[in-house]
Amino acid sequence: MTFEIDAQLRRDYFVLGKLPLSHVLLLNNAAVPWFVLVPEAAAIELCDLPDSQYDLLNAETRRLALLLRQGLPGSRPAGKLNIAAIGNIVRQLHVHVIGRFEDDPYWPGVVWGRPAERRYSDTAVHAIVRYLEEHLEDFTSCAE
Amino acid sequence: MTFEIDAQLRRDYFVLGKLPLSHVLLLNNAAVPWFVLVPEAAAIELCDLPDSQYDLLNAETRRLALLLRQGLPGSRPAGKLNIAAIGNIVRQLHVHVIGRFEDDPYWPGVVWGRPAERRYSDTAVHAIVRYLEEHLEDFTSCAE
Repeated sequence: MTFEIDAQLRRDYFVLGKLPLSHVLLLNNAAVPWFVLVPEAAAIELCDLPDSQYDLLNAETRRLALLLRQGLPGSRPAGKLNIAAIGNIVRQLHVHVIGRFEDDPYWPGVVWGRPAERRYSDTAVHAIVRYLEEHLEDFTSCAE
Repeated sequence: MTFEIDAQLRRDYFVLGKLPLSHVLLLNNAAVPWFVLVPEAAAIELCDLPDSQYDLLNAETRRLALLLRQGLPGSRPAGKLNIAAIGNIVRQLHVHVIGRFEDDPYWPGVVWGRPAERRYSDTAVHAIVRYLEEHLEDFTSCAE
């Protein structure tokens, strides 16, 4: 495999592990729980994915969204979900799966382009990885 | 059917017509071609749609995205697509399908929360409706 996660994504996000199609990343901003899915695919746009990958990416997106609504370790259940594929700056296809709260620092605006408010501790990130291992079938953490 | 499109969406967008699941709306901002799909569904979040509606909404999203990339009447082929379900302000489930250009007034930022730059003429909107009728199977315009 020659697939590499984009360098800017690797700089801004923790790479937590992988689902069958997508790498699972977490933005280092503890103010809102914010995953990014990076599918191992050649397409730049969602609509260019072959049907099987389109369906699989949408299924993985949904699984992460449901976890955010249950609430990650260290975070309340998300009151609202924001799901988006934008990619104006980083062109590698990636899908944002973000939990929002009516009292988060960005509410009710969108979160893109806004500065991080709080950083995660190593302990907090490890707790999230363990949570994904327990709650997402087929998730493999990078630590393994 | 008692389904009604949210009043704020009806105020900001033209209601163009309907696909099998979703109403097709167009934001009155000619600077970027910007559709919104409003599925006739009870869910607030994408992840709460039953499987059949989730797949159908994703399929309708893809069809509109492909049209934007071909280029609507009066607009160039979109160089980038932005696809998102946000809903922080309008809670009725709706999916944004937006064509972006490296010289549009918002590039490379996101478009939500930014003011409209140019309004559509009635002629321009009618041309887009005709284009959808010609290029989207199962699309029914509101005029019919």
